[in-house]
Amino acid sequence: MMTGRHLVRSLTFLLAAEALWPQAPPPVVSPEVHPDRRVTFRFRAPNAKEVLLAREGAPRVAMQRDEQGIWSVTVGPLEPDLYGYSFVVDGVGLVDPSNPLMKPNLLNTQSMVHVPGPPSLPWELNDVPRGTVHRHFYRSQVVGDDRDYYVYTPPGYDPAGKVRYPVLYLLHGYSDDARAWTEVGRAHVILDNLIAQGKARPMVVVMPLGYGAPEIVSRSGPPLRNPELRKRNYDRFRDALLTEMIPQVERTYRVLTDRTARAIAGLSMGGAESLYIGLNALERFAWIGAFSTGGLGEDFAATFPNLDAKANAQLRLLWIGCGTEDFLLELNRKFRQWLTAKGVKHTAVETPGAHTWMVWRRYLAEFAPLLFR
Amino acid sequence: MMTGRHLVRSLTFLLAAEALWPQAPPPVVSPEVHPDRRVTFRFRAPNAKEVLLAREGAPRVAMQRDEQGIWSVTVGPLEPDLYGYSFVVDGVGLVDPSNPLMKPNLLNTQSMVHVPGPPSLPWELNDVPRGTVHRHFYRSQVVGDDRDYYVYTPPGYDPAGKVRYPVLYLLHGYSDDARAWTEVGRAHVILDNLIAQGKARPMVVVMPLGYGAPEIVSRSGPPLRNPELRKRNYDRFRDALLTEMIPQVERTYRVLTDRTARAIAGLSMGGAESLYIGLNALERFAWIGAFSTGGLGEDFAATFPNLDAKANAQLRLLWIGCGTEDFLLELNRKFRQWLTAKGVKHTAVETPGAHTWMVWRRYLAEFAPLLFR
Repeated sequence: MMTGRHLVRSLTFLLAAEALWPQAPPPVVSPEVHPDRRVTFRFRAPNAKEVLLAREGAPRVAMQRDEQGIWSVTVGPLEPDLYGYSFVVDGVGLVDPSNPLMKPNLLNTQSMVHVPGPPSLPWELNDVPRGTVHRHFYRSQVVGDDRDYYVYTPPGYDPAGKVRYPVLYLLHGYSDDARAWTEVGRAHVILDNLIAQGKARPMVVVMPLGYGAPEIVSRSGPPLRNPELRKRNYDRFRDALLTEMIPQVERTYRVLTDRTARAIAGLSMGGAESLYIGLNALERFAWIGAFSTGGLGEDFAATFPNLDAKANAQLRLLWIGCGTEDFLLELNRKFRQWLTAKGVKHTAVETPGAHTWMVWRRYLAEFAPLLFR
Repeated sequence: MMTGRHLVRSLTFLLAAEALWPQAPPPVVSPEVHPDRRVTFRFRAPNAKEVLLAREGAPRVAMQRDEQGIWSVTVGPLEPDLYGYSFVVDGVGLVDPSNPLMKPNLLNTQSMVHVPGPPSLPWELNDVPRGTVHRHFYRSQVVGDDRDYYVYTPPGYDPAGKVRYPVLYLLHGYSDDARAWTEVGRAHVILDNLIAQGKARPMVVVMPLGYGAPEIVSRSGPPLRNPELRKRNYDRFRDALLTEMIPQVERTYRVLTDRTARAIAGLSMGGAESLYIGLNALERFAWIGAFSTGGLGEDFAATFPNLDAKANAQLRLLWIGCGTEDFLLELNRKFRQWLTAKGVKHTAVETPGAHTWMVWRRYLAEFAPLLFR
């Protein structure tokens, strides 16, 4: 056991160690979430001319400089939620160096602030049985790279047991990676809560890396605007999912393999992938969800050449949601109109919100309870 | 299938979406790893007065500003490795906004650059069978918080099979979290490689969150200098490990539960924890590793009141390594001298290097092959 004298001596370690952390003195507190749910953001930049707060789903707001060169702004009260944000310092988006909570992204890593809310919010941690998140690594023959996918198994999942579970394949958006649905979307927390409340059936959720042509994720315009690259991105992702990941999942986990026990859903680019893959492979997927779909194009007949009212006999759910402030709302409405014209039944959802994770967490919490009923 | 016309139309989505990413135009390329292993770092800060590159294990170097306000510096050639770095902009440490690869840390998140090397380096990805990394969540009764731990299972691990594996408990350092050994240390890649080469026995590796008093991780000095808090941090972590995590692991995984199949090792604060917990519980651990130990204090007799030469009959390995440029080298030498005076056998390792992950990846690659023989 340690004595007081012993501990005092070991402070030499801490003093030396502190010198390693260049940000230690003097500390800036940011973000500061006040009891009334206003949030103060602070950033030290003594020589910057302009510092803006860029917050997910909100217009940028100017921050004010004090005499010490610390810029700050207080916003809100904000609805309880998780918000991505960055500081735009003389035109450059930066994460908050005072905040370890990150919103990972391949093109625009941001910081994230949690404005806590009541335990009834689907993404709040509760004292309920918790599932497990597994990260798998493999070399894709289809894509030709080393990649990963994440698998959520529900509380009580027993790899040596007799129970088999249905599976939701849950896809991220453009510029996200395979971590997004857990690190940002808190899909594992949402599922834990829904299952504990008896609102969702226990299920396995697979969260792949959603690119068939990873080079499409680029800061420079040309690859993004290359039609062949975009087509390869969707087609090779589909092939990697259908011929590599799904077989691996079905070998590794105790899951049901009937089409009525297999769902696919995603956000933005992942919504387009879910529709493109799912509606063209109804022999594999009976449940399809598209959240704030983007990148689907508008030539729906070319994208879904075989889709017509016969699909209604196979589709257990086709769920299409979009925020009313989303710049993609019109595309989503056009697609739903086309489905209606083709006689394809679907659930149409429009809710307040823009192209943000605040919308997508809620969509997962609405969509998952409908599955596998 | 998509047609050209269809894809051209869907570009409206991409053009709109690009507007969401404030860093898109004009892109700065950073870091740029040249074929000769020199690395150029770039950062746009038109109004900054001073921008330094802070690279793991190296003195800070000044970056130079060009007419566009882009600061840059080229260093190296660097030895193939992964290096944490940040830009110190007028005194504030910032991650590189052009680089999605992060070095997560609770006090000082940095960016990370990979200087690729030959496949023989233990942390390089090779086309070998890959293990899986599992993330578990639980509410700790000992600590009173919700926390996580990561578990690596080796290639071929079968949860319904007959084989049982030995377990290494692998601890991070002060200001890291439970992700550190995989995200920064690439422990899963190192184990995959060592196992594929027949150099290490297939084993399970458990990587817990290493705090018994998480409030010790604070930018402000006082909590860090509070002796009671530091003692609670070690003691409660020990209790959470011994009474919560180890039982959970042994219920969940096909692992051996004999002391000769259980190892504990860690870096810096995790080295101190491995020694404090392991050497005071030889009935549970036969293999102990301490990498660049810090925070152990110097009153060894008070910390290890029952340790003497009788331990040699129980210890299969006590491995103590430290870099010759580490500011903790003297502490490590003193501890080894004390062990020698007590007649406790140990393996002493000193290698070039400072208090860095470049040292710790190599130590894991040296230490793991010695285990469970």
